Amino acid sequence: MIPMVALLESYKERVGKINEYIMHSLEVVENKDLKAAMAHYPQAGGKRLRPLLATISCEAVGGKWTAALPFGAALELVHNFTLVHDDVMDNDETRRGIKTVHAQYGIPKAILAGDALFARAFELIPDSDTHDDRLVQLVEIIAKAVRLLAEGQQMDMEFEGRKTVMDKEYMKMIELKTAVLYSAAAQGGAVIGESTDREEDALQEYGRLVGLGFQIWDDVLDLTSDEKTFGKPVLNDIRNGKKTLIMISALEDIHGKDREDLFRALGNKKATPEQLLAARNVLDRAGAIDHAIEIANGLITEAKEKLTVLKDTKYRKCLESFADYTVTRKS
Amino acid sequence: MIPMVALLESYKERVGKINEYIMHSLEVVENKDLKAAMAHYPQAGGKRLRPLLATISCEAVGGKWTAALPFGAALELVHNFTLVHDDVMDNDETRRGIKTVHAQYGIPKAILAGDALFARAFELIPDSDTHDDRLVQLVEIIAKAVRLLAEGQQMDMEFEGRKTVMDKEYMKMIELKTAVLYSAAAQGGAVIGESTDREEDALQEYGRLVGLGFQIWDDVLDLTSDEKTFGKPVLNDIRNGKKTLIMISALEDIHGKDREDLFRALGNKKATPEQLLAARNVLDRAGAIDHAIEIANGLITEAKEKLTVLKDTKYRKCLESFADYTVTRKS
Repeated sequence: MIPMVALLESYKERVGKINEYIMHSLEVVENKDLKAAMAHYPQAGGKRLRPLLATISCEAVGGKWTAALPFGAALELVHNFTLVHDDVMDNDETRRGIKTVHAQYGIPKAILAGDALFARAFELIPDSDTHDDRLVQLVEIIAKAVRLLAEGQQMDMEFEGRKTVMDKEYMKMIELKTAVLYSAAAQGGAVIGESTDREEDALQEYGRLVGLGFQIWDDVLDLTSDEKTFGKPVLNDIRNGKKTLIMISALEDIHGKDREDLFRALGNKKATPEQLLAARNVLDRAGAIDHAIEIANGLITEAKEKLTVLKDTKYRKCLESFADYTVTRKS
Repeated sequence: MIPMVALLESYKERVGKINEYIMHSLEVVENKDLKAAMAHYPQAGGKRLRPLLATISCEAVGGKWTAALPFGAALELVHNFTLVHDDVMDNDETRRGIKTVHAQYGIPKAILAGDALFARAFELIPDSDTHDDRLVQLVEIIAKAVRLLAEGQQMDMEFEGRKTVMDKEYMKMIELKTAVLYSAAAQGGAVIGESTDREEDALQEYGRLVGLGFQIWDDVLDLTSDEKTFGKPVLNDIRNGKKTLIMISALEDIHGKDREDLFRALGNKKATPEQLLAARNVLDRAGAIDHAIEIANGLITEAKEKLTVLKDTKYRKCLESFADYTVTRKS
């Protein structure tokens, strides 16, 4: 298997081309302010996992990666559009060390920049190098994904006001809010690469499982990493009282002083670092973090099994490594 | 020529089917709250001018109107999505007698409902009854239109903070904010009806000119109608200090007491009905309203001239009446 660091390293050049394509795609915007607000997140960098997944999936069914470049860029613009709007809804002032779009440009411009990123994404899709019937399918895939993303964000917001959330509900929410776009990336790449239906279905499911694993691993990192390594503040989910899978399973098992320690910090925006750490340790001791890691690993194993319908090529191996990467990454 | 009232009356059944299609298209949304926020404006009714324009344009080049129904519904959803987001940006609490979406459901849900309407619009396009290459073209047309709508809204917001706006700038703004979607409706209808390139170009231009006329006439109605007839509060543009074409031309010519009367009400949210009326009368006496009516009529004449490349059918006559309607309507 390809080691993780080597995997991302080997795609450095491709990520450069994806970034070029994305930034170039924003040049068509006339209004300078609108363009700057649209470019705020894309130009701040990122791993471009969704475009990578789309392009590797395309290769894994026999296509050229460049055929899926416009579609991959469209996915990244959609991802960035949801970040811009989610940050407004969640009232977040910073994202990965920079000001959020609305903190920098105001809420009206942030709403507008998100809308324009969304529109621009759909303008890029037809530039993907494939037949018209498959272009239409790509539009259907992304449009449905965005509609489901909205359902996921709505669930996430509703959970904030609720006392208890079931683990099944949490899984449904992250499926809609995160997995759907990974699923669209892998499926869309397959469509562009002129896959068989069986390959397309397998990659769609692979993407979905990878997306679920990705999100659960993100919840784990929030509790086990440090800000410098993770690239964003840690213990945030405790501070914000997020009902992650870890929290949901812990709340069932924790009693007495441990429960008091947890609730002292949970959803308490003014919790001290010591209180946050104490809560974190409670979750750890209860085995809730290990439990989540196990589930994430299980999803990734399942995801890799889906790949067995594909021809045994180096691209399939890359998809295996990609899956492993999502639940071993440090940031 | 077909009288205006008769025109809308003759499409009553079609509007009913458009409404049915639109409301049915929202049923796929699972989350009840999200669905209710999305349906808030569509279910409040409306003249459905964009879907009507798309379907009649389709007929005028030889297609069936039902082939353009999904595309027309998509245009209406896009229109409603922009209303939802614009109302958040403009901080408006009511729209045509009902609460705005964010006033009713809060800003986060309004942003999300707009996004989901936008996504749903793109899901509908492929249901239009035409070939795949033309479906792809429809996606390009709507995606570009929405990107330009965002540019127009951005200009509109910038104008609010400016002392002077040139009439050329105003025309550019309403072209982007309003005309682009009418243009997309007429062009898209032609594409679905398998028009020639010449017919498509003519209808695109016709739609653009009709959209411009529509918006200028809206500015006229704000100053010449009453709330009951217009269906929304009048003299709003004075109260909000909007730099409409009427205002721009008046500001060049008005001096002395008239100028004082105008500026007493202009952009003054607390202006009394008497002050607003005095300002309105200043604009009237200066000939600024008549000037705008003349320009709107000129645009509509030009629009109708574009139709001469089409075959002389009853559908072409309907498009002529449609154009006339936009600058004679009372609401």
